[in-house]
Amino acid sequence: MTRSPLAPAHFPFVPKIAGVRLGTARAGYKAWERADLTLAELAPGTTVAGLTTRSRCPSPEVEWCRAALPQGEARGLVVNAGNSNAFTGARGEAAMRLITGTAADALGCAREQVFVASTGVIGVPLPEDRARAGLDAAFARLARAEFATWEEAAGAIGTTDTFAKGAVRTLMLDGHAITIAGIAKGSGMIAPDMATMLAFVFTDAAVSAPALQAMLVRANAVSFNCVTVDGDTSTSDTLLAFATGAAGNQPLTAPDPAFEAALTDLCRDLAQQIVRDGEGAEKFVTITVEGAESDRAAAVIARSIANSPLVKTAVAGGDANWGRVVMAVGKAGEVADRDRLSIRFGDTVVARDGAVVPGYDEAPVAAHLAGREIAIGVDLGIGEGRATVWTCDLTHGYVSINADYRS
Amino acid sequence: MTRSPLAPAHFPFVPKIAGVRLGTARAGYKAWERADLTLAELAPGTTVAGLTTRSRCPSPEVEWCRAALPQGEARGLVVNAGNSNAFTGARGEAAMRLITGTAADALGCAREQVFVASTGVIGVPLPEDRARAGLDAAFARLARAEFATWEEAAGAIGTTDTFAKGAVRTLMLDGHAITIAGIAKGSGMIAPDMATMLAFVFTDAAVSAPALQAMLVRANAVSFNCVTVDGDTSTSDTLLAFATGAAGNQPLTAPDPAFEAALTDLCRDLAQQIVRDGEGAEKFVTITVEGAESDRAAAVIARSIANSPLVKTAVAGGDANWGRVVMAVGKAGEVADRDRLSIRFGDTVVARDGAVVPGYDEAPVAAHLAGREIAIGVDLGIGEGRATVWTCDLTHGYVSINADYRS
Repeated sequence: MTRSPLAPAHFPFVPKIAGVRLGTARAGYKAWERADLTLAELAPGTTVAGLTTRSRCPSPEVEWCRAALPQGEARGLVVNAGNSNAFTGARGEAAMRLITGTAADALGCAREQVFVASTGVIGVPLPEDRARAGLDAAFARLARAEFATWEEAAGAIGTTDTFAKGAVRTLMLDGHAITIAGIAKGSGMIAPDMATMLAFVFTDAAVSAPALQAMLVRANAVSFNCVTVDGDTSTSDTLLAFATGAAGNQPLTAPDPAFEAALTDLCRDLAQQIVRDGEGAEKFVTITVEGAESDRAAAVIARSIANSPLVKTAVAGGDANWGRVVMAVGKAGEVADRDRLSIRFGDTVVARDGAVVPGYDEAPVAAHLAGREIAIGVDLGIGEGRATVWTCDLTHGYVSINADYRS
Repeated sequence: MTRSPLAPAHFPFVPKIAGVRLGTARAGYKAWERADLTLAELAPGTTVAGLTTRSRCPSPEVEWCRAALPQGEARGLVVNAGNSNAFTGARGEAAMRLITGTAADALGCAREQVFVASTGVIGVPLPEDRARAGLDAAFARLARAEFATWEEAAGAIGTTDTFAKGAVRTLMLDGHAITIAGIAKGSGMIAPDMATMLAFVFTDAAVSAPALQAMLVRANAVSFNCVTVDGDTSTSDTLLAFATGAAGNQPLTAPDPAFEAALTDLCRDLAQQIVRDGEGAEKFVTITVEGAESDRAAAVIARSIANSPLVKTAVAGGDANWGRVVMAVGKAGEVADRDRLSIRFGDTVVARDGAVVPGYDEAPVAAHLAGREIAIGVDLGIGEGRATVWTCDLTHGYVSINADYRS
């Protein structure tokens, strides 16, 4: 797969996160020549927080993570790529139990301290023999100190992704240098809305599980929950954050503004990278809605615009089709007054108070739309509500990828 | 534009509807060589019923129809194609007033008895000079008895449509032969959900406006409201029904089962023709959801499946990807139990009770998906709720048409 034209120049440099050891292996979930099983071994005492999809048809992995999260401690994470193990009945449940049980035995911990996520085709049970062999190989690599890099791990959790997604932030907490690193995968079936995609965040900070959870929920709300590729919410969406405590800071037992700001910034970075690798994406689109009745209404309208096939194809075609933006505002169902509506492409206001601006000059708008980074702004002129959603265009590439993915 | 491969073999034979005279003209709303203004002159005493879009950004035409409907009588209908006149502020409002005023003068009726609908690009005011010249030409043709055929009228109201959409039904009412004829246009920005697309129904039956409205609302609920092409709801959706009373039957003052059945069947026919001309459509897809908590829940789930880009591209690719159907059920937000879910393609059950059936044979499913008429069935196994939605696949053709529509 060709690297997305919207990809960052390179994977970021991620320093070692004390208390985290990464291993990858080739379980062979698909007929590909790459690692597709990722193992993270976490030091004793590591706390965990997380969010999962609100899909009514979640995978056994999602249900397992939900059940294991409240106890707040983690010793391991296993990620399978190429098979989501969702909608696989008792066989899928058994595969999940095999993986968590095998890992717990190897780590000498309770099964509830092993977290697992799988991504890929839905409806095909994860093959137990491949999972077991892959897991054994990953543990063997750890035993030989053949640790995987963050970039390798980020690559191993991907499916149709065209680049490995990672981000890192650093900060100081009571004199201790703290690192937060995260990896994520896309790149279709992306409309986290109520939860998120597969993304894993690791930090050496000492943070209590409840404090980590509180900060993660808020960070997620303004990052992963604000992206959409195709409006299709996955059955496997999982965001997990692990804090090893190895940095030695006084443990955070309540949200810390500096830590939360860094965590939020990192989540936003990862979320935007998912959009930048949206299937077939040629343009990265930032949709900002202001002047709505409420922030919630603004978010609904922004998502309506971001998910509209007609808006997305117009962006793909470089067409400043503000009429389709009006359509998407109108269908969102939130309070809108056509005659107060203003629409902007890039820095150019094209429509104000319900009609095209006098003497509208399309040239600067066309120039903006010819670029890779597109901004669409809508001001409803009604209230103070605002929201931002990031998405990509809908291209022939999306159709090509998805009309022939599973087969 | 190549005729859709899903188009009916030919336009139906529509007999004359006494009390209706059709005229078309070339207003020149776009640079095309075709009639784009349609006029229907209706006999005195014609009753009218209608539904319009629930978009929060409707066109002035939609607002006009809404305001005029309660008085219940109609003498004329004007349809403009190539420009929706939506989101055009005071200039659009003035153009709508010019059209209804000019037609009312020519017909010698109140302005409220003239209905108007416009379809096409959003955000560009309808040029008044072209509208006036087109309207004059259409009236001149009527004066010369140069009436348009139903097929010509159906063609003149279209935009990106690849075939003219019409349907006719006949019945007897107290010994009088009754004809109901209808025309409709598609073919993108189709997700009527709460109202419908442009569709106009004419009958020579005598029906009171309230009775006609009651029957039309119910017919719409199981026809136009059950189709979607791209999930994008138009700012101009309008369904109007006119009853001239020329057939001489005892006027219906309450819904009549035979008339309502014929009206409903005709609306379903037109609605399905809209899907068959969905932009880029290669396959006609019937999605049936059963066993849901309620009919409403079933409809939400069916629409979630029908609007999923991943399901639509899978159908385009002939891929029996039941996992994407599970995803769409899960994201719909309605009550679902993964482990009771069954999925069918054509007549073949591929998944039952939350997992693929034992010994699943993909061959008959692949054969079904290679055809033009696709059926996807979902049984939630929970309750008695059911719904059917008709849609089409998402192809390269859709992207090609919409990445370069307005420019």
